[in-house]
Amino acid sequence: MAATYKNNIELTIFGESHGKAIGIVIGNLPSGIFIDEKEIQRDMKRRAPGQNQMSTARKEADQVEIISGIQDGITTGAPLTGIIYNSDQHSKDYSLLKTNMRPGHSDYPAYIKYNGFNDVRGGGHFSGRITAPIVFAGSIAKQILKQKGIKIGAHILSIGEIQDESFDVNVNDELLDELLEKPYPTINTEIFDQMEEKILKAKENLNSVGGKVECVALHVPAGIGEPFFDSLESHLSSLMFSIPAVKSVSFGDGANIDTMLGSEANDEYYYDENGNVKTTSNHNGGIIGGISNGMPITVTVTFKPTPSIAKMQHTINVETKENVELEIKGRHDPCIVQRAVVVVEAMMALGILDMMG
Amino acid sequence: MAATYKNNIELTIFGESHGKAIGIVIGNLPSGIFIDEKEIQRDMKRRAPGQNQMSTARKEADQVEIISGIQDGITTGAPLTGIIYNSDQHSKDYSLLKTNMRPGHSDYPAYIKYNGFNDVRGGGHFSGRITAPIVFAGSIAKQILKQKGIKIGAHILSIGEIQDESFDVNVNDELLDELLEKPYPTINTEIFDQMEEKILKAKENLNSVGGKVECVALHVPAGIGEPFFDSLESHLSSLMFSIPAVKSVSFGDGANIDTMLGSEANDEYYYDENGNVKTTSNHNGGIIGGISNGMPITVTVTFKPTPSIAKMQHTINVETKENVELEIKGRHDPCIVQRAVVVVEAMMALGILDMMG
Amino acid sequence: MAATYKNNIELTIFGESHGKAIGIVIGNLPSGIFIDEKEIQRDMKRRAPGQNQMSTARKEADQVEIISGIQDGITTGAPLTGIIYNSDQHSKDYSLLKTNMRPGHSDYPAYIKYNGFNDVRGGGHFSGRITAPIVFAGSIAKQILKQKGIKIGAHILSIGEIQDESFDVNVNDELLDELLEKPYPTINTEIFDQMEEKILKAKENLNSVGGKVECVALHVPAGIGEPFFDSLESHLSSLMFSIPAVKSVSFGDGANIDTMLGSEANDEYYYDENGNVKTTSNHNGGIIGGISNGMPITVTVTFKPTPSIAKMQHTINVETKENVELEIKGRHDPCIVQRAVVVVEAMMALGILDMMG
Amino acid sequence: MAATYKNNIELTIFGESHGKAIGIVIGNLPSGIFIDEKEIQRDMKRRAPGQNQMSTARKEADQVEIISGIQDGITTGAPLTGIIYNSDQHSKDYSLLKTNMRPGHSDYPAYIKYNGFNDVRGGGHFSGRITAPIVFAGSIAKQILKQKGIKIGAHILSIGEIQDESFDVNVNDELLDELLEKPYPTINTEIFDQMEEKILKAKENLNSVGGKVECVALHVPAGIGEPFFDSLESHLSSLMFSIPAVKSVSFGDGANIDTMLGSEANDEYYYDENGNVKTTSNHNGGIIGGISNGMPITVTVTFKPTPSIAKMQHTINVETKENVELEIKGRHDPCIVQRAVVVVEAMMALGILDMMG
Repeated sequence: MAATYKNNIELTIFGESHGKAIGIVIGNLPSGIFIDEKEIQRDMKRRAPGQNQMSTARKEADQVEIISGIQDGITTGAPLTGIIYNSDQHSKDYSLLKTNMRPGHSDYPAYIKYNGFNDVRGGGHFSGRITAPIVFAGSIAKQILKQKGIKIGAHILSIGEIQDESFDVNVNDELLDELLEKPYPTINTEIFDQMEEKILKAKENLNSVGGKVECVALHVPAGIGEPFFDSLESHLSSLMFSIPAVKSVSFGDGANIDTMLGSEANDEYYYDENGNVKTTSNHNGGIIGGISNGMPITVTVTFKPTPSIAKMQHTINVETKENVELEIKGRHDPCIVQRAVVVVEAMMALGILDMMG
Repeated sequence: MAATYKNNIELTIFGESHGKAIGIVIGNLPSGIFIDEKEIQRDMKRRAPGQNQMSTARKEADQVEIISGIQDGITTGAPLTGIIYNSDQHSKDYSLLKTNMRPGHSDYPAYIKYNGFNDVRGGGHFSGRITAPIVFAGSIAKQILKQKGIKIGAHILSIGEIQDESFDVNVNDELLDELLEKPYPTINTEIFDQMEEKILKAKENLNSVGGKVECVALHVPAGIGEPFFDSLESHLSSLMFSIPAVKSVSFGDGANIDTMLGSEANDEYYYDENGNVKTTSNHNGGIIGGISNGMPITVTVTFKPTPSIAKMQHTINVETKENVELEIKGRHDPCIVQRAVVVVEAMMALGILDMMG
Repeated sequence: MAATYKNNIELTIFGESHGKAIGIVIGNLPSGIFIDEKEIQRDMKRRAPGQNQMSTARKEADQVEIISGIQDGITTGAPLTGIIYNSDQHSKDYSLLKTNMRPGHSDYPAYIKYNGFNDVRGGGHFSGRITAPIVFAGSIAKQILKQKGIKIGAHILSIGEIQDESFDVNVNDELLDELLEKPYPTINTEIFDQMEEKILKAKENLNSVGGKVECVALHVPAGIGEPFFDSLESHLSSLMFSIPAVKSVSFGDGANIDTMLGSEANDEYYYDENGNVKTTSNHNGGIIGGISNGMPITVTVTFKPTPSIAKMQHTINVETKENVELEIKGRHDPCIVQRAVVVVEAMMALGILDMMG
Repeated sequence: MAATYKNNIELTIFGESHGKAIGIVIGNLPSGIFIDEKEIQRDMKRRAPGQNQMSTARKEADQVEIISGIQDGITTGAPLTGIIYNSDQHSKDYSLLKTNMRPGHSDYPAYIKYNGFNDVRGGGHFSGRITAPIVFAGSIAKQILKQKGIKIGAHILSIGEIQDESFDVNVNDELLDELLEKPYPTINTEIFDQMEEKILKAKENLNSVGGKVECVALHVPAGIGEPFFDSLESHLSSLMFSIPAVKSVSFGDGANIDTMLGSEANDEYYYDENGNVKTTSNHNGGIIGGISNGMPITVTVTFKPTPSIAKMQHTINVETKENVELEIKGRHDPCIVQRAVVVVEAMMALGILDMMG
């Protein structure tokens, strides 16, 4: 399996859910940047499982050990490597899955691609657990971006059909700070109760739900990106689709912009009182022609419902070549959206940092 | 501007809307493949402007001259280059646009990025016209894929809020053949009349509309793609977002999959009567864990309304640093979705060919 | 065939020796740079054939038509494309070579790789003629580097065993200017007579000779390059080995540095009278640990003798599967080293420009 | 610092000489390959320091812990990660080197590039010690290649001016097996005594020596590689120049091929008694036009004398901006060539595996 993104920065992930460790190497970071490990641990905790009934009971400290690239808390410029040793593994739960392909999971395509040699324990290298190192890398990227004045934030835009408000053209640092303080970041503070209810009801029914995360990067200067193959949208979508369970990526009002007229969808420019170029709306999410225009960069990412459900499902046994019934045991999340908020932030931060060269 | 996609195949586009020529170089194609130029010209015509009231009045033969990589109609393995010489240019129409930034267009970010040196005539290298070479490359890719048994097709899924039916799990070669025969490919034949009405009404109002294109690749074997950064979704989305005006990319029921329950979104596997692995539904669009599962690969791409509209708009003059009013002259498309169908097919074909290695 | 180099800049070459045209697309150039076409034509002439008895009698104007990326003589930032239309082709000379594999030529490996579909006329895409677009691209790179104060130059270091002097630590702009004025650039002006004699004698004997080119980049700042895979040496060697007939690449006193002691090979640093960091010698060719140290960057490239010789040779006929005798007809260079000087300069310029980001 | 090679396989190295650990992640390996850890340890030992007077006294077990990508001894297809924890570090030896730039070392260019934030202890990420993970990766690559019938071997071609014999056209598996058994692999068994004498004499004089390693890959099929930027020579040289202290790379008789006539340098083809295509000589090192021709692939790599010498040298102090004298303390190798043999093999194996796709 390919595991590396190489453009201006380099990301290489490794590890399996139930192996010795998982981790990431980040190449081409600037030297001389102080990295606050407390901020890293805060972000790690935002993703970590086992914190409530809405996520898997698996408990992982997700303590990252930095084994290269930092000296006395400061980046040296050398590849920065973070490792998380696995601890709370229940591998016996997964033995049946070598033959019985879970619907909605990578089991079957991976079985074909790797001739059955892939590690299936906990999803192996396909596990959502691999997003932990991405959160680590993203936390470092956010700290570097902060020094350039760029701020990243995100919220739960929807769980199933229950919608939070969207970021509007006035999205600002204060709102992102508020979201960061919330255990379940929604702009409309009340709405999460309904979301939680929906998640717990799905859990009760041995089922799962999906949702959307909306993410924004503030204060990215105009002129970042390229038309065509290296557009900001191409790179950011490529990173977002690297998050397990993502099935749709939109910029600005992307998925709905086709129901507007041109006169509505075009964001009109103006000079504000300070002579800065602004737009009166931000339907294009801060990107035009593949290049940033100086407005907030917004992306919406859709997560499918967690494929691991306890409900009985039909599938195949690749050894006996028979159609079979399957009930997935083990510990699973009825919804991963609330844990994925910080993962989307991470990819946004890594993508913006990368494209700024 | 970066202009190259380099993975297993290589794509390099060049040219400006009102320059001498536009074109593409395709590297790493297999040798020994007969290329039917009639199929290329048919695809070129599907994209070409000037065919009716729904598109710009600019007339371009869009005749591609192949200047390398083919000998006696057969690929040699050497880089294959196609060039289209520009002919019907009205460059004087665009002189004002060096200073007055069109809303929704790349003018302003390009002005910042290239310090005002970018060619603005007809949008220069940012023009939708650059999709003509992509259609050419895609037509070649489709012919190569056909020899592997893979078939690509697409239809207009929506214009504004007017919806065609979606591909379902049974989408087959016959349906794609039928779509190819239609001047305006929709599954529901009647629906295009309403779409046309919407487009012409927008035109009448000096406005424009957007829409969605759904594309499918049939008979792609299971096992193509990688988890994470080189996932099939990452590469395909990266290519789709290289099409001007695309703001959202979804796989399978992507944008709506979050309103399903896990038990609904999971595509259950079964062995069919011939012992082939199938799924009873295809909500995941043939891709799980970044890898093809053998089912039809479906992608939906959202186009924003054409940003060039004749209606008065507010914007800035970057020379005088003043807020100004703008009425865009010239010949423009009130809707580009119907012309973009074959462009989406092209990117799908190039992406699938690329990822098959 | 892959045909693209993609790092900070992008190079895509295309065309066959006896096809319609050959050319190159250069992506990611800076905008706003005035390009002097006279300098381009001067460089093209330095490589062009047909100028004397030491090179092939094929006459090509090698007039480059720029079809994108430049407006009013200034780079726009868009991909810059140069095309050279082929004219003086004698394709009939090459018919036998579809079956009889020329020793030292790409014929046999290309036959295997492309299943016999590769264009063999004049070497097709493997022809040394493809270096003409590289010279074009290099000439543009040199002009851009000149604006950064960087100067590139080269000389014939040897023809067979006949040696010119090497660049020493004091190599300067004046020497490079002098070399540029010479039709056959050698530091020791007298030595070329012996070289010419050697070349003409080989020609008389239906044979050929090889040689070395030494190239230097002056005033490259310290700090360019990376350790390991993106070292300055890795990238420059990768480009140099893309020149047909190159079999060895050395930096500084590379090929002989192993016969020095450490105390001799180490270049000692000192502050000069202006407080600039210099070294007293330059055995490492301005690169240490993969990164420039501010001293002149020197590279030596070894060209094998031209493989096309009229002398009878033994080889195979891949159709009859028999061992056969071969006498190569057609027009060939008894030595290509003197024509390759500007090609080496081009790759140096492109590599340095690329690595400066 | 960039740290990743990404082509068909992916290599990402990390770690500093005196940090917690060093390691490598290898992406895109085939699944289902049994990896013999004993062979890995044998290769690690061939590179390991502290085995005799010719290398540094630093003692490192160089025990690699595989933390991902292998299950029950068999590759899973997931990224394979090997980590070596550092143990015998004497960091206090290096404190002066933050300001006093060692001649011939990366100290000064790294100081400029990383603004003094790079880890200088033991050379940090620039240390020759980083070649240990490369040997690990190479050992895995060799085992995978062995299953394709490909065998890699190397020998010390020279130490200073003392020369071993070169591989000739008949180089075969038996010779490589013999070389592998020798502690100091030379074809001429007697010659190493003279080499050792030279090394120890240099050591006695507080000095160091360099040398050449010749490496071969047997049974690589014809047709691997590309003309131009992805030539076998471009990729292999790029990898070889990623080994610290390498200053020259040649293929076949590369560095001397320019003193031959064309009729001598051309390798003539013939069908052998089994109908296989062979050449009577192998001056081109099995690569023509950037593509393998089925003959042994040979490369010669030149190492400069170890830059760390105890002898007094002149250099600069970047803090005081003064010219100073320097005597390097610590434990150093008077020659690294004998330890580098297996490193060159590793890069050859990784390069061939990569290019075979």
